[in-house]
Amino acid sequence: MAGSLGLDLAAKKQRQRKDYAYRLDYRTRWADNDMFHHLNNPIYGVLIDSIINDYLFKHCGYNTHSYPRTALVASTYCDYFGSVAYPSMLEVGLRVVKLGKNSVMYECGIFEEGSEQVNAVGGFVQIWVDRKSNRPPPEGLEPQVRSELEKLMAGSTEAKSAAKL
Amino acid sequence: MAGSLGLDLAAKKQRQRKDYAYRLDYRTRWADNDMFHHLNNPIYGVLIDSIINDYLFKHCGYNTHSYPRTALVASTYCDYFGSVAYPSMLEVGLRVVKLGKNSVMYECGIFEEGSEQVNAVGGFVQIWVDRKSNRPPPEGLEPQVRSELEKLMAGSTEAKSAAKL
Amino acid sequence: MAGSLGLDLAAKKQRQRKDYAYRLDYRTRWADNDMFHHLNNPIYGVLIDSIINDYLFKHCGYNTHSYPRTALVASTYCDYFGSVAYPSMLEVGLRVVKLGKNSVMYECGIFEEGSEQVNAVGGFVQIWVDRKSNRPPPEGLEPQVRSELEKLMAGSTEAKSAAKL
Amino acid sequence: MAGSLGLDLAAKKQRQRKDYAYRLDYRTRWADNDMFHHLNNPIYGVLIDSIINDYLFKHCGYNTHSYPRTALVASTYCDYFGSVAYPSMLEVGLRVVKLGKNSVMYECGIFEEGSEQVNAVGGFVQIWVDRKSNRPPPEGLEPQVRSELEKLMAGSTEAKSAAKL
Repeated sequence: MAGSLGLDLAAKKQRQRKDYAYRLDYRTRWADNDMFHHLNNPIYGVLIDSIINDYLFKHCGYNTHSYPRTALVASTYCDYFGSVAYPSMLEVGLRVVKLGKNSVMYECGIFEEGSEQVNAVGGFVQIWVDRKSNRPPPEGLEPQVRSELEKLMAGSTEAKSAAKL
Repeated sequence: MAGSLGLDLAAKKQRQRKDYAYRLDYRTRWADNDMFHHLNNPIYGVLIDSIINDYLFKHCGYNTHSYPRTALVASTYCDYFGSVAYPSMLEVGLRVVKLGKNSVMYECGIFEEGSEQVNAVGGFVQIWVDRKSNRPPPEGLEPQVRSELEKLMAGSTEAKSAAKL
Repeated sequence: MAGSLGLDLAAKKQRQRKDYAYRLDYRTRWADNDMFHHLNNPIYGVLIDSIINDYLFKHCGYNTHSYPRTALVASTYCDYFGSVAYPSMLEVGLRVVKLGKNSVMYECGIFEEGSEQVNAVGGFVQIWVDRKSNRPPPEGLEPQVRSELEKLMAGSTEAKSAAKL
Repeated sequence: MAGSLGLDLAAKKQRQRKDYAYRLDYRTRWADNDMFHHLNNPIYGVLIDSIINDYLFKHCGYNTHSYPRTALVASTYCDYFGSVAYPSMLEVGLRVVKLGKNSVMYECGIFEEGSEQVNAVGGFVQIWVDRKSNRPPPEGLEPQVRSELEKLMAGSTEAKSAAKL
């Protein structure tokens, strides 16, 4: 990827599938549609939770049973540019926008099968804390988590410096 | 398919993917899991609603906007034989058990990717009514709906006679 | 209560609030409505799960963290007699139909505020197993669980004999 | 209310029930909890959708069937300060932060019964468009919608000027 991706609304509206290094398809469900026959807004949040944790489970060694740290969500955000509806297939993409000592800012793009226009761009800021103390550990993110998340930083202005850590 | 499929619990527990003529994969989502880290029971109902209406939309000409008839659900049922969990992929199968004048009994089997054992067998009884009068029309199911639903009756004891209609 | 409550469809359709010893109000939510502007069917299952576990948590000492037994759901059922819609308030009632050695059959009635007609009658069969062995314990239900569940058996044909245990 | 409410994180963390002019209680449900036994984040979005539309339905004359305008959601946001869990009762409060020509910025606070600390503060920006043209009408918000929304602007820095319109 040549340059970095802007975080303003106009830039987000131009997101493409290739801007997201990790992508999964999600089949929509009957209950996803609201009274206007379009995806209910909180469903975008469900998809965002799903792809982020899918990556953490499958690539970073994270689990919800006995992992020594807990990943808390501090804030969520989403901008809507279009609408999709059951029974479409969706493609959800994931990238990492910022990687701090114990925090991660994720961004997801939601696309409908057969369409180039991104429908929504949203994500959350996550804080990793020690499972017992519930506080961010002084040593920061575990090395294997950090290195796997760095792989999703293409397009981030911080990608270069992060790669140097 | 040689014989017919029993509707008792022991027979349902032996269901295989091939018993279902129409099958779709559904990726599980973070919010599908309950506090025991397994799929919440109502999610099986969501999947059942989803595959049945997917077939009606794509094969029978049905839609939720302006179709002259409404498909009501009279009763739902589900038997659970195992459990699945996010982030697995599921395969959901659909067959038609009984086809009446204006009613349809559906059965779905829910399988987890990589496993032969069926996890749940459930479905619902649907009544088609006229959109305006809200009553079952005297002429019965529309011909294209009936003929498409008959294609899912393999394994039904009524398949033969139904095919003769 | 004078007599026992029938389990056929005609009898269920006549259920009244007073047939259920434990009742809670649930405010409907925007996402509960489906494309037909009525409660999505799986939401009834969510309400059934909610009131049953509410009673188990608050009256029977059950919890999902460290309780020595796990309450599994073997099968679910629901009959629909009407429809409700967001933003209505609902009243959900709970009774126990059958109480076995380690199994419980629950029935819930869902009513809309301001209406006498029951909209749906559904529930599930629950099997209590030992958390470690995953098998029904030979001594049966714990005494405090059994005695609290017996309080919900008014209207059950087994209420009398159960009360004698 | 004496002054205006700040929109920074520190100010939001101090929100109290009285900062929200419209409040409704919502009973949590079994399926609201995630694998960590706390409310799933998208459920906060469901509650936000629910109280906002409840006010629009009951006070502003809005409906989802035939209303001449459609209320689109442009973006959603939420900050989390604590966690709540089924089977608690929640109290959700609503206020209007900004009122534009055809746009409304809402803020909701989610409180748990028996606790003063706000658990989450979130909301969305809504754009009202003509149902047929899908464009914001030149005359702006309908008078009855605007006047009912202005009643929720206590604490907004724009409340005074808005009241003069």
